[in-house]
Amino acid sequence: MIPKAVFRFLILSLTLIALSIVASAQTLAERLGYPAGTKLIIVHADDLAETHAVSAAATKAMEAGTINSASIMVACPWFPEMADYAKSHPDADFGLHLTMTSERVYYRWGPVASKDKVPSLLDENGYFHHDWEHNQHANPQEAEIEIRAQIERALAMGIHPTHLDSHQYRLIMYGKDLFEATLRVAHEYKLPLFVARNWFAQNPYLEKSLGPKDIVIDQEVTISPSVTPEKWADFYRDALENLKPGVTIFIIHPGFANEELRAATRERATWGADWRQRDYDFFSSDEFREILKKQNIKMITWRELARLAASH
Amino acid sequence: MIPKAVFRFLILSLTLIALSIVASAQTLAERLGYPAGTKLIIVHADDLAETHAVSAAATKAMEAGTINSASIMVACPWFPEMADYAKSHPDADFGLHLTMTSERVYYRWGPVASKDKVPSLLDENGYFHHDWEHNQHANPQEAEIEIRAQIERALAMGIHPTHLDSHQYRLIMYGKDLFEATLRVAHEYKLPLFVARNWFAQNPYLEKSLGPKDIVIDQEVTISPSVTPEKWADFYRDALENLKPGVTIFIIHPGFANEELRAATRERATWGADWRQRDYDFFSSDEFREILKKQNIKMITWRELARLAASH
Repeated sequence: MIPKAVFRFLILSLTLIALSIVASAQTLAERLGYPAGTKLIIVHADDLAETHAVSAAATKAMEAGTINSASIMVACPWFPEMADYAKSHPDADFGLHLTMTSERVYYRWGPVASKDKVPSLLDENGYFHHDWEHNQHANPQEAEIEIRAQIERALAMGIHPTHLDSHQYRLIMYGKDLFEATLRVAHEYKLPLFVARNWFAQNPYLEKSLGPKDIVIDQEVTISPSVTPEKWADFYRDALENLKPGVTIFIIHPGFANEELRAATRERATWGADWRQRDYDFFSSDEFREILKKQNIKMITWRELARLAASH
Repeated sequence: MIPKAVFRFLILSLTLIALSIVASAQTLAERLGYPAGTKLIIVHADDLAETHAVSAAATKAMEAGTINSASIMVACPWFPEMADYAKSHPDADFGLHLTMTSERVYYRWGPVASKDKVPSLLDENGYFHHDWEHNQHANPQEAEIEIRAQIERALAMGIHPTHLDSHQYRLIMYGKDLFEATLRVAHEYKLPLFVARNWFAQNPYLEKSLGPKDIVIDQEVTISPSVTPEKWADFYRDALENLKPGVTIFIIHPGFANEELRAATRERATWGADWRQRDYDFFSSDEFREILKKQNIKMITWRELARLAASH
């Protein structure tokens, strides 16, 4: 005889497993309550708090509604400005843009954690490395210390992040150990970590490390340095007009090409001031709004995705 | 009988003591080779590297020649830009603006030393304290660790500083222990530390701690929040027209009142964007040049003072 309590537990467990199989067979759009075939996008600005010019452009477009999600660099000097903004805009969709590099030349930053604790992340002058050559620099245990320090500062300064992602994809694309360290912390803080299905082919460890509860965005779209400035709007128009059903995230880099941003990015044009102004211009344009309407594209944020993750 | 070698040594010693007495009886201007009564000024910009807008304004006026000295904040995010500029302008008079506070609200920075080593200098979020209430925060041993870290980073990044001074006078005006720690490091690196004679009355420990080899500027002039914007030029004009003979340093805060500087300083007007624009405007004006000429005021830099200190 199986005791009644154990029997009930078994039934409950089997039901949950069955629901989980159904859930995983559903598309992300369906799990969000949309009919299969719906085209959903998140328009996500990166690098808030890196410079004032970036924060100002992104928040302006968020207030206008054409950019609806963003992530903030806790290690950067303008972080207090963004923490203040996030507190006074509690419904805005802000994640944390976990940062392990300081990729510019004239304007730089370092860790939130104590330098002694994260030596592999730092160059000889105490800044985050400009770059990681062959991934030799980042010790995953030290990266985890720094990830936790950034999250803890953000929480202490009043931010309630909706998601985590990683500046320059360092914690995602640079090996299983860094990714799993990040995912472990994300689970601990119950925050979705941005991963897209179109990255799996190049980084097979991503899919293997993820569990059934993790959110996977169907498609990431981001512009590359191969697109010339005059083709900028064409690139985004094409991407939107040929959008696949499901959840697509546009990772964009808006900014105002003012003196500050020009000076901070002057050593190279990629993700520089003009690049960021072009992103701002397209994603605050009437053309962008009209394409969304014409193509019947709906905008969602990480808030819906986070609720989905939490409902498991 | 005194052996000849000992006798020679005694004579030499007495001569040096006599020369030293003569030197200390001389004014700083005379020791620099100017006739008694000469009016000498250093026009010194503070806070370079704090924002790009400050660095850009100060270096522009330095290239024009009306500002001829400045000091750089090693802990701030734009320090790499200033290190690069200093390397490509090796004759410019750059000191280090030793920084122990992060006095703004929306834009902040922390230590160069590992945070574990300087806890008394940091607030609960890991930034330098916004302010020091009753001087309770700064442990002199920790301040010395941070001073050394800032100097070492500056040297490692190619700056050859001409002098040391202290952001918000924290290391000078906030007690004997902090001052003596700073002076000790200055002596070790053979760098003059900015001290002015008109501070002695309020901080008697300054004079007591200084040795005969230390340079003491005769007079510091700096504008205060009590001067209204429309009286700005009047204040400087009066100071220059009533300049005392000897070495006077004008501690000024030039900057361009652009979006970056307005955002970084928006919580209060003191030393804010407009203040800095006014300083830039006066000290790059034809009026300023004409007053110098009319009053027969000569400009000197910390380079001459450093040579004097080194010649002891």
